[in-house]
Amino acid sequence: MRKIHVIGIGAGDPEQLTLQAVRALRDTDVFFVLGKGEVKADLVQLRRDLLDTHVPQGTYRLVEARDPERDRAAGGSAYSPAVGDWRSARAGIYERLIAEELGPDERGAFLVWGDPSLYDSTLGILEEVLARGAVDFSYDVVPGISSVSSLVARHRTGLNRVARPVQITTGRRLAEGFPEGVDDVVVMLDAHQTFRRYADQDIHIYWGAYLGTPDEVLDSGPIAEAAPRIERLRAEARARKGWIMDTYLLRRNPRQD
Amino acid sequence: MRKIHVIGIGAGDPEQLTLQAVRALRDTDVFFVLGKGEVKADLVQLRRDLLDTHVPQGTYRLVEARDPERDRAAGGSAYSPAVGDWRSARAGIYERLIAEELGPDERGAFLVWGDPSLYDSTLGILEEVLARGAVDFSYDVVPGISSVSSLVARHRTGLNRVARPVQITTGRRLAEGFPEGVDDVVVMLDAHQTFRRYADQDIHIYWGAYLGTPDEVLDSGPIAEAAPRIERLRAEARARKGWIMDTYLLRRNPRQD
Repeated sequence: MRKIHVIGIGAGDPEQLTLQAVRALRDTDVFFVLGKGEVKADLVQLRRDLLDTHVPQGTYRLVEARDPERDRAAGGSAYSPAVGDWRSARAGIYERLIAEELGPDERGAFLVWGDPSLYDSTLGILEEVLARGAVDFSYDVVPGISSVSSLVARHRTGLNRVARPVQITTGRRLAEGFPEGVDDVVVMLDAHQTFRRYADQDIHIYWGAYLGTPDEVLDSGPIAEAAPRIERLRAEARARKGWIMDTYLLRRNPRQD
Repeated sequence: MRKIHVIGIGAGDPEQLTLQAVRALRDTDVFFVLGKGEVKADLVQLRRDLLDTHVPQGTYRLVEARDPERDRAAGGSAYSPAVGDWRSARAGIYERLIAEELGPDERGAFLVWGDPSLYDSTLGILEEVLARGAVDFSYDVVPGISSVSSLVARHRTGLNRVARPVQITTGRRLAEGFPEGVDDVVVMLDAHQTFRRYADQDIHIYWGAYLGTPDEVLDSGPIAEAAPRIERLRAEARARKGWIMDTYLLRRNPRQD
């Protein structure tokens, strides 16, 4: 039976691979790489470098496919349906890749940035492929170091404070208000620097972009002072690289620790 | 100057070490191991095994100390002050260990289960030692695979659902009510199986104990059916091993995905 590894490869630092991930890489016959267009070409190259470092050449095949375009224009409350369409389109691509490129007793792998459990669609899409019933396979998941863990490690702080909760959410959710019942909030997928809305509050921000890569940028501080700096750093980095991946932790009432 | 690595070593599977963690282990002259008494002797042994596997013998020293007893009887609203006392006691031990056992140009390390950013006191204690001013050092943090990432990887599910938040909290907090504004909640440090309070709700539970070790136990399902099973599994495992470390994800309204 076909088998698939979903491998978390860490947030950008090739040394964040786990020994378990290296073993899974070496167990793989076919790597499936879905490109997101030219702006993310750096990321495709980073994945190729990982394979060159850890897997003997000639022992695997690399199959590249083009990601379906996501309808970002939809926005607002239409976000979820657009995501659903995109997932179904992607499931079609995965189904074809697995059926056509993976032999009946071979092992395939999808390499996922960070940890496959956080804001990544791979597991949901594989379940959708299985539910369609046209192709059968088993799969396992190798956890990876998330950008969330990387962020707080680089800032040498915890995600939560003693005996208190932490929430991980999106920029879109944060725009609707500071989450109820928590004072520590990690924000991912924020294209709009939503932290600026809270610049008048008693909040400490820990921010990072391109974590673990040579382009890594970090900043932190009371949000009133840090927000304009981060806005500038982010604009400069984005202009230079053509794309940005960043995340941040907001810690409300930082002195009550 | 003295330097200290705080190294996340994963949730129990020795293969969850990252390449970065292996490098930090090999860069270390003195490992500080704080025992938690006999019930956790297995965990001290697991750490020794990690060192035996990855670091040449004779290249490091292992310094063991006894953890201060935490006043667990305090409970209730007295929890935080009791934790504060315990942290100060531990800071005193760390200060002495660093001052007496680590040479001025040597590298020390603390090995932390899971990820040092989640419900672990090491970073807070090191900051307290620095604030006391009696001993000086620099430190860095190597992120690790948390039991949270391990849990969902083994269950092959995500932490969050598409575009939605996830909260990580404690059993004590969950006893006060299901958190506001989220339907996906990871619970750690729950000695009282607080999930039982929600057994009449439309919740799917993903549970795991001793994740990544040969003793790993997993269960999942609609909470009404799974809760009694987990209660039984947990009691059996705890009786057999003498201690238990478990965590779980509660997913409310599981069909609304």
